[in-house]
Amino acid sequence: ESRLPGFATHQIGVAGAVVDESNGKVLVVQDRNKTMNAWKFPGGLSDLAENIGTTAVREVFEETGVRSEFRSLLSIRQQHDHPGAFGMSDMYIICRLSPLTYDINFCTQECLRCEWLQLTDLAKTEHTTPITARVAQLLLHGLESGFHNIDLSMEVIPAVYSGKFYQLYHRQLPSTLKS
Amino acid sequence: ESRLPGFATHQIGVAGAVVDESNGKVLVVQDRNKTMNAWKFPGGLSDLAENIGTTAVREVFEETGVRSEFRSLLSIRQQHDHPGAFGMSDMYIICRLSPLTYDINFCTQECLRCEWLQLTDLAKTEHTTPITARVAQLLLHGLESGFHNIDLSMEVIPAVYSGKFYQLYHRQLPSTLKS
Repeated sequence: ESRLPGFATHQIGVAGAVVDESNGKVLVVQDRNKTMNAWKFPGGLSDLAENIGTTAVREVFEETGVRSEFRSLLSIRQQHDHPGAFGMSDMYIICRLSPLTYDINFCTQECLRCEWLQLTDLAKTEHTTPITARVAQLLLHGLESGFHNIDLSMEVIPAVYSGKFYQLYHRQLPSTLKS
Repeated sequence: ESRLPGFATHQIGVAGAVVDESNGKVLVVQDRNKTMNAWKFPGGLSDLAENIGTTAVREVFEETGVRSEFRSLLSIRQQHDHPGAFGMSDMYIICRLSPLTYDINFCTQECLRCEWLQLTDLAKTEHTTPITARVAQLLLHGLESGFHNIDLSMEVIPAVYSGKFYQLYHRQLPSTLKS
């Protein structure tokens, strides 16, 4: 990668798809301030220097009251001229999370509704966004055939020059190939 | 995702792994301005409003003279306190590209060397970075078992509210499941 001075061009939004594997349900919300009441995964913007998984877990808790843990990265959307991004671009990342608690206590300032919805229903309802429906299909495929088929797993790796650490996401390699 | 006003926190760097499937070689460079001469994939920072794949193809051409086309997204690294990023964070994305031309005509201002290297050699050499070695392993796995095992494929999808389009990346769904 280039070491030429650059400048920040993207805001990072992260959503968390909290999947209850015991019953095939996923945690979804409807925003209070939208023209269309569409089910989507809870999420929001990353704070400065916040890791992707940390944003997902934090935003899910703030919006829904449900505690969860990071499992994988599922999907990335890049969008330019994003409304509300002041000419900057937007990277929207959806993570897979596992629930640690199940009781909903949602933020009424941000959300109109919050429910554990069947993934099969979310995949086919019209009351959602195309990206949410697509990720619901991905998650169904993962539930049926194994989440390794849809996940980008995360690893913490030491940086070469700085002595710091970074988070690397990619498809899991078969264990026989990993060095 | 949240529609609250945010601000850009990340610069986006993109590298292109141009794989010649006919001989198992990949295009790599050594930077001129590094303390360590490590093989890595050509790449650089995204311009404002530039798509990930466009950055990869442009940077590969500028650094190496090789023309290529975007195939998939392979890996994402998130790093905070990145040197040269002025306190902002860095998202470094590695794409898989296919070569359209093969003759190297590299930029001597940026690069010390540029070669088509065997992926098997890149995966085990010490003269590379951990992330490059890891992606070389991923690419070898893809060459042997099919690139669908390592790729996040890209689709252009219309945005719900703005009437614009965005790029969505995720693992390919079996064709029977796609709506």
